[in-house]
Amino acid sequence: MDLATIIGLVLAFGSFFGSILMEGGSLAALINPSAMLLVFGGTIGASMVSVPLSTVIGIPNVVKHAFFGKHMDTAHVIQTLVGFAEKARREGLLALEEQAREIDDEFLKKGIQLAIDGTDPEMVREIMETEVAFLAQRHAEGAHFFTTLGGFAPTLGVIGTVSGLVHMLANLSDPGSMGPSIAAAFIATLYGVCTANLMFLPLGAKLKHSSQEEVLVREIMTEGILSIQAGDNPRIVEEKLKAFLSPKKRKAIEEALQAA
Amino acid sequence: MDLATIIGLVLAFGSFFGSILMEGGSLAALINPSAMLLVFGGTIGASMVSVPLSTVIGIPNVVKHAFFGKHMDTAHVIQTLVGFAEKARREGLLALEEQAREIDDEFLKKGIQLAIDGTDPEMVREIMETEVAFLAQRHAEGAHFFTTLGGFAPTLGVIGTVSGLVHMLANLSDPGSMGPSIAAAFIATLYGVCTANLMFLPLGAKLKHSSQEEVLVREIMTEGILSIQAGDNPRIVEEKLKAFLSPKKRKAIEEALQAA
Amino acid sequence: MDLATIIGLVLAFGSFFGSILMEGGSLAALINPSAMLLVFGGTIGASMVSVPLSTVIGIPNVVKHAFFGKHMDTAHVIQTLVGFAEKARREGLLALEEQAREIDDEFLKKGIQLAIDGTDPEMVREIMETEVAFLAQRHAEGAHFFTTLGGFAPTLGVIGTVSGLVHMLANLSDPGSMGPSIAAAFIATLYGVCTANLMFLPLGAKLKHSSQEEVLVREIMTEGILSIQAGDNPRIVEEKLKAFLSPKKRKAIEEALQAA
Amino acid sequence: MDLATIIGLVLAFGSFFGSILMEGGSLAALINPSAMLLVFGGTIGASMVSVPLSTVIGIPNVVKHAFFGKHMDTAHVIQTLVGFAEKARREGLLALEEQAREIDDEFLKKGIQLAIDGTDPEMVREIMETEVAFLAQRHAEGAHFFTTLGGFAPTLGVIGTVSGLVHMLANLSDPGSMGPSIAAAFIATLYGVCTANLMFLPLGAKLKHSSQEEVLVREIMTEGILSIQAGDNPRIVEEKLKAFLSPKKRKAIEEALQAA
Amino acid sequence: MDLATIIGLVLAFGSFFGSILMEGGSLAALINPSAMLLVFGGTIGASMVSVPLSTVIGIPNVVKHAFFGKHMDTAHVIQTLVGFAEKARREGLLALEEQAREIDDEFLKKGIQLAIDGTDPEMVREIMETEVAFLAQRHAEGAHFFTTLGGFAPTLGVIGTVSGLVHMLANLSDPGSMGPSIAAAFIATLYGVCTANLMFLPLGAKLKHSSQEEVLVREIMTEGILSIQAGDNPRIVEEKLKAFLSPKKRKAIEEALQAA
Repeated sequence: MDLATIIGLVLAFGSFFGSILMEGGSLAALINPSAMLLVFGGTIGASMVSVPLSTVIGIPNVVKHAFFGKHMDTAHVIQTLVGFAEKARREGLLALEEQAREIDDEFLKKGIQLAIDGTDPEMVREIMETEVAFLAQRHAEGAHFFTTLGGFAPTLGVIGTVSGLVHMLANLSDPGSMGPSIAAAFIATLYGVCTANLMFLPLGAKLKHSSQEEVLVREIMTEGILSIQAGDNPRIVEEKLKAFLSPKKRKAIEEALQAA
Repeated sequence: MDLATIIGLVLAFGSFFGSILMEGGSLAALINPSAMLLVFGGTIGASMVSVPLSTVIGIPNVVKHAFFGKHMDTAHVIQTLVGFAEKARREGLLALEEQAREIDDEFLKKGIQLAIDGTDPEMVREIMETEVAFLAQRHAEGAHFFTTLGGFAPTLGVIGTVSGLVHMLANLSDPGSMGPSIAAAFIATLYGVCTANLMFLPLGAKLKHSSQEEVLVREIMTEGILSIQAGDNPRIVEEKLKAFLSPKKRKAIEEALQAA
Repeated sequence: MDLATIIGLVLAFGSFFGSILMEGGSLAALINPSAMLLVFGGTIGASMVSVPLSTVIGIPNVVKHAFFGKHMDTAHVIQTLVGFAEKARREGLLALEEQAREIDDEFLKKGIQLAIDGTDPEMVREIMETEVAFLAQRHAEGAHFFTTLGGFAPTLGVIGTVSGLVHMLANLSDPGSMGPSIAAAFIATLYGVCTANLMFLPLGAKLKHSSQEEVLVREIMTEGILSIQAGDNPRIVEEKLKAFLSPKKRKAIEEALQAA
Repeated sequence: MDLATIIGLVLAFGSFFGSILMEGGSLAALINPSAMLLVFGGTIGASMVSVPLSTVIGIPNVVKHAFFGKHMDTAHVIQTLVGFAEKARREGLLALEEQAREIDDEFLKKGIQLAIDGTDPEMVREIMETEVAFLAQRHAEGAHFFTTLGGFAPTLGVIGTVSGLVHMLANLSDPGSMGPSIAAAFIATLYGVCTANLMFLPLGAKLKHSSQEEVLVREIMTEGILSIQAGDNPRIVEEKLKAFLSPKKRKAIEEALQAA
Repeated sequence: MDLATIIGLVLAFGSFFGSILMEGGSLAALINPSAMLLVFGGTIGASMVSVPLSTVIGIPNVVKHAFFGKHMDTAHVIQTLVGFAEKARREGLLALEEQAREIDDEFLKKGIQLAIDGTDPEMVREIMETEVAFLAQRHAEGAHFFTTLGGFAPTLGVIGTVSGLVHMLANLSDPGSMGPSIAAAFIATLYGVCTANLMFLPLGAKLKHSSQEEVLVREIMTEGILSIQAGDNPRIVEEKLKAFLSPKKRKAIEEALQAA
């Protein structure tokens, strides 16, 4: 998992619980089973209605891939592609056949294979871009599910609070017990707003970012393959691909390529 | 109906009613006829003003189609198109005439027929894409109606609560009856926020998703027909169409095509 | 006026007033002249500042056209254009001169005339599309004015309520009169939220829809004229234009054309 | 200044103050120096941080130009361009040299001069469109500044109210003085919400509209110059430019051109 | 740092603290350590979860560059490019080799070098535009982080207030201490709303603007290099680049170029 995610989650929830303890409150006072049922059951239910069954089923996978999947190294990808460009320039496209077999990444493998097979460059671009577009969409669905959870949770918190207050007001007999009843009603709001803002929405944003990063790597691969297929000079391939990077990463790659 | 929709609706409303019963409240206390009239009458009225008469009339159909319409299987569609590509390659486009007659789907049938008739490929694309665009728009109207309902309902709930509080405050004589009066006024808010968040907005989102899925199938059909008309190799047709799918579905199709 | 608009307005306001009467409230209690002045004067004032004078002046016309203007029948438009295509195919474009004179619609008349005059097709498209774009923009201004009214009204309601509460609190002498004073202050909120949600916003949405429908008819006309000018087969003209319609309307047209 | 702006501002603020007087309140009760400092100082400060220094400095100019700048008459612009087209058709582009010198508008003058100099039409279009794009952006900055003010003002009003209530509650000794203290605290909210909704946001919207109108005039000029350079028939020039106008304005121009 | 930023921050926070002192409040009453922990810890935590680790690490750099980085002078850039155009016109593109070595800006240097090397203009444009696009994206991440902070802070303020009120109500024994407890609970809201609106959101907006300005300079450079490579007349180069500027800056450049 991304280190910022772990540190952020610990910091956010730690601040919340720490601040309650500092005020002299007890964490046990935050436990309210009927509010839990309403806020978590309602949020998950409403979100399940909102998305297709296949998205719901795919969520564990998307999350696992996004948080624990191996991070692709853009520097390494560019180095590989520049290496391919050099080999193709010296020995022809067909010479890449052997290397292509050793590539782990399915997307890159397929792209190189299409180029070797002499597929029309326009068609290579079309096939690879369609694939990237649908990859981006599938990832967006995962991020969207968290945003949906984060959208419904606060509203269900408010529903819980209003319904708690209605119950309390309708059965008002002992005004002395009003305080604790109102407090209990507001626990639902806390559940909804806290889970949404400390967990669902931030995780949704992170998923969106990690998807963008993967799309970027795929775009670099597409550009690289097309450039190799066009017979571009390896220096031009390198220049083209490095334009996708920040100056810092670019410097790292330049050093790595010179060392090679 | 989509299984996630049923499970989600049961979970959402179950959590709401369950949480009230857990708190020792009675569901009968939630019944408030004047709030019902205001929230449901007002929401439906405002939404009817917002959309054209034809959309209002078409809603039952859109809903029926979206929730009970038969789900098109992308794998099956691709298999069919690859089969057509093979036949067209071997025996020419005209050989598809017979198969075209047996196709259930009006859209696919018409596309194949246009290709057989030798219509200019640009015109085939134009006609089919216009049709998909308008199909998407008609579906969007259905989803939009639910979103409109979900937008007005909470506001009408607030109108009901404010108007209940105004009535209560204007006729304040016995402060002891204030509690139940406020409770009754807030029932309207519960109606508006619950129906919007547990029903209207999630259903609107689901309708939008199921429309996107149908549009995707139509786009696959359009691409397939144009590729067949262009005389593409069946392997290329397959490769092009599979790019629209997730890796999981793709594997399923590959196995099905190899088995065939 | 669109039937859905009338039914919707009656239903929305009927539900509101009906719910108040059901609760035993009196409609007279809703009358508060100072709140009326603030909410309606302020909303109209702020909206007038927001848009150009010409839009303000044009509002009555836009509204009249949108709600009482004669609805253009797409089926009839397509039938007319297919008829023109047949005549042009048989007797040449110039033969349309006579029919063009009898067309009521200024836009269609001008388009046909441009085609007859032998204007370059690219220029015909450009002139007609610019006209449609500006028509859409002028209509959008009308819809936008209602949305602007609907945006300011609730805020002015809140201003009225806050200013009423400030007045009440600053002159607090008899706590017993607090209830009716708070009630009176909240009337302003009711004015703002009700007019916005039961009238302004729904009417703005309806205007936007009826503008989209008119733009669609104009797009059908543009496509038709260009197709006629290109000498397309009347069957192709029909096929192209029918793609703009829902399957239901399409069937109706097919029957009408076969009957002709 | 646009008449609708003046009438709207008078109507909006008149309604606000009138409604307070009608309720028997005094306008003096609205004066709260510490709330003024917070709301106006804070809003201007936050907005200054939000935009570049150059925008802040340019605001007076943008406002002056937008509200007091002379309104360009589209009818007159089109008449001028059609006149140029006729002259260029009869005597050649070079014959426009003399007239170009008398043009007041810098943009139009430069465009005509580029055409006379025989600059490549693609470059004329590029230069003029870049200029229009940046004009639009500079105007958008002015409108955006008002929208920024209108966005921060209500929040600063809320900050003022919360901070006033905190002060009041922390020093609670005489519950009898609570009413006036709460009233004073809410004055800050009134400041923020009123200035934002009766002034900043409407003026921002108006500025945006008047910028769009100026951009439209510039687009008409660009189209006209390119059409003249291309040697189009003056009737075609007229037809092309009139497409940018509403039917009403169009009729006025047709009469003016026939009279000429 | 941009002068408007400093003045704005001083004005905004000065107004806030000044207004509290004017009301007779003490700034010490604003200090609430548990609210600080919750609002600042929670906001930073949630924002860290929302963005990739690399963005979090890069924030100090982005901020430093944006606020203290040297401001590029568009007038100077244009003058330089026009000078290059003149030299290239007289002595050929290769003559720029020497000057290129003295350029400070990496981006401009690389662009000129690509032109001298005789790289295909389409490729020069592609490489430079990709670089500008990614520069814009990296800057957008910095601005986005501040907007994220500004989005979470008010919500965490509300969480703090609700959790404070819950604690107070649950332990209600001495109603006399309610006032100060509520006051303390609302301090959290003040923290969240003030930091968001007086600092995070305005700084995010400023970062976005300063990034846009840098992108503009890069676009001017790209256009200039391509125009020089195309062998355009220096006057045309000047005309093209000046179109990116406001009339005021344009006049300044014209004077500078005539003086040269």
